[in-house]
Amino acid sequence: MVVTLLTDFGVADYFVGAMKGAILSVNPHVQLIDITHDIPPHDIRAGAFMLLASFESFPSGTIHVAVVDPGVGSSRRPVLVEGGGHFFVGPDNGLFGYVYERLREFRVVHLTRERYFRTHVSSTFHGRDIFAPIAGALSNGVEPDALGEPVGDFVRLESPAPLRLPDGTLEGSIIHIDRFGNCITNFSPRDLSEDVLKAGARLVVGEHVVNAFRHFFAGEGSETQEPFVIPGSAGFLEIAFNGDSAARRLNIKRGQPVRLIKSS
Amino acid sequence: MVVTLLTDFGVADYFVGAMKGAILSVNPHVQLIDITHDIPPHDIRAGAFMLLASFESFPSGTIHVAVVDPGVGSSRRPVLVEGGGHFFVGPDNGLFGYVYERLREFRVVHLTRERYFRTHVSSTFHGRDIFAPIAGALSNGVEPDALGEPVGDFVRLESPAPLRLPDGTLEGSIIHIDRFGNCITNFSPRDLSEDVLKAGARLVVGEHVVNAFRHFFAGEGSETQEPFVIPGSAGFLEIAFNGDSAARRLNIKRGQPVRLIKSS
Amino acid sequence: MVVTLLTDFGVADYFVGAMKGAILSVNPHVQLIDITHDIPPHDIRAGAFMLLASFESFPSGTIHVAVVDPGVGSSRRPVLVEGGGHFFVGPDNGLFGYVYERLREFRVVHLTRERYFRTHVSSTFHGRDIFAPIAGALSNGVEPDALGEPVGDFVRLESPAPLRLPDGTLEGSIIHIDRFGNCITNFSPRDLSEDVLKAGARLVVGEHVVNAFRHFFAGEGSETQEPFVIPGSAGFLEIAFNGDSAARRLNIKRGQPVRLIKSS
Repeated sequence: MVVTLLTDFGVADYFVGAMKGAILSVNPHVQLIDITHDIPPHDIRAGAFMLLASFESFPSGTIHVAVVDPGVGSSRRPVLVEGGGHFFVGPDNGLFGYVYERLREFRVVHLTRERYFRTHVSSTFHGRDIFAPIAGALSNGVEPDALGEPVGDFVRLESPAPLRLPDGTLEGSIIHIDRFGNCITNFSPRDLSEDVLKAGARLVVGEHVVNAFRHFFAGEGSETQEPFVIPGSAGFLEIAFNGDSAARRLNIKRGQPVRLIKSS
Repeated sequence: MVVTLLTDFGVADYFVGAMKGAILSVNPHVQLIDITHDIPPHDIRAGAFMLLASFESFPSGTIHVAVVDPGVGSSRRPVLVEGGGHFFVGPDNGLFGYVYERLREFRVVHLTRERYFRTHVSSTFHGRDIFAPIAGALSNGVEPDALGEPVGDFVRLESPAPLRLPDGTLEGSIIHIDRFGNCITNFSPRDLSEDVLKAGARLVVGEHVVNAFRHFFAGEGSETQEPFVIPGSAGFLEIAFNGDSAARRLNIKRGQPVRLIKSS
Repeated sequence: MVVTLLTDFGVADYFVGAMKGAILSVNPHVQLIDITHDIPPHDIRAGAFMLLASFESFPSGTIHVAVVDPGVGSSRRPVLVEGGGHFFVGPDNGLFGYVYERLREFRVVHLTRERYFRTHVSSTFHGRDIFAPIAGALSNGVEPDALGEPVGDFVRLESPAPLRLPDGTLEGSIIHIDRFGNCITNFSPRDLSEDVLKAGARLVVGEHVVNAFRHFFAGEGSETQEPFVIPGSAGFLEIAFNGDSAARRLNIKRGQPVRLIKSS
């Protein structure tokens, strides 16, 4: 049984180790996998994106524990999400908002059965005291229905989908910049075919116009110094640059607006 | 069988991978868990704190390999500590000093049986060549008595407990600053009840007085911009700040003195 | 079955998690071990060194997945290397160049059997879509011959061995600087015996002459403030400094030339 962890805890503190210990205390036979712990502190949208980009790579039955939880200890609810063959455990604060958009069917359970929590639940570390033991219980075969009550008023995120203007232009934004400086937009590869591009389509970000399209980073045209659009591995169009950081070369920041203009 | 690792090796070098390979070469079936590898280089106290804050989250029988080892290759002894249902393997240099304070009963074994070491022991990497194979042997069921001789003159750390002045004031210090800027003191939640606080108690750190007390980071009073004291997840009082880094807002450094003044 | 991962992906993105999910989707029972993900982006030589320094610590049969892959999506071939009881999976771009020098016998297989790849292979993330599932297949017992065709024209790296000048001087370089500031040269401990050193041998790096030799970091002579040569745990001579970073104290950069002068 695979349990993944995604947090904003970093790896310099004891937080991640303590969560893993708490899971293993309930089920010592799980396979624990880190997605990332470097979500910027309290950045729920960044966590939601990272979860969206990775969860489908895992086998059916995987339990994803996600903790980006600025409201820990307050009235925000702990929840379990079941859908698409995956389980998600964490705070009901929008962290699963992008996953909700991807899943066709899912249900959300408010975690209320304290007998499955740690004996002493702190007010500051629900990752260790609630989410970890719940993941352990799930991995041991406890049914979601035994862990709490279904809820329908869970917290969603504003859709990551771009806005379509009357003239066909799409208004989107940069939702992530990766280690290599590639800038992930919220445009789908379906939004921009090569035909559309040949007809004069282009991405406009800040003062830059990107109108080259490539299928991979290296190879054809790699000697030219220009930005290009590429269908990225997270399922979105990305802005990249030959052998360099597009973010640095075009001075692109996360959250910045991008327009996809379909005709000249 | 769970084996944890805590080092000052960072994760950019081959050190942690090599240690894990050495453990798996002795027992390929252990579950390897990183606590952290970001202890500041050679900072034995920081390592001791991180171990204290995390080891009790792990199941009984867990083997904790800890390597913060500026004296590697010198006459400092390699040791095994057994206590509280846990095992600890590493250098006898104070790294287990805080664990000794927490455990009621424990024993320390000087690791001398070289047949359980790597065939060739380097002078610079005992993590790979001594501690890892010893952890592998332990996980395979080798008894501590077979690994060396008990010793009583192991290295302790100066107690992390605060000093009590004649007027009841406690003199303590900041023992850790976490990723979120929360400042962990060496005061216990037992040192400061809400009643005591209402009677005028306060924490003084640098030029700042902290006299608000909260049970969690978010929620009540979270709109006010002030520092507060909170019982933290590592078992100590922490100084926190509404939605911000207390360390930055109050300019607090690790090691800085803090006074807990009980009455006005 | 142990599968290690070594990449330049960092740990802040979803890349490593997605690779692990892809491996576990093929074989949920593998033991996944990170060597490092902090290879500088696209630095094939750094990846080659880190692999060389760590792979022999792992048990026989280990599968090492290594991805430093600036040419992903281009015509560079995906390969499997089998030798010394280990398997290596990754791009044919020199990343396994130092491993080739260490292995006595090995063979390289061009990975061509797409039925073992992910159903949809992206052009930008072969780590997830080719190398991970191939590692999963190998761990399930699929034979290398079933995965592709042997090739002889695989990409080698310029040998890491130093150059021997007519007067016996060795011309080498700094191939890695570790977290502690120790500077790893490409000289072997066989290149410099203590006898040779007593006869006046010395290392010259930049404007500095290093003519002290020690067997470990701490202990004898540790009070003197001087650089020294030490046989390091990766199998090379290192330049170190008493309780400090040799790189900082001697202003040494990775790639910098070093001369080993045998007599005065």
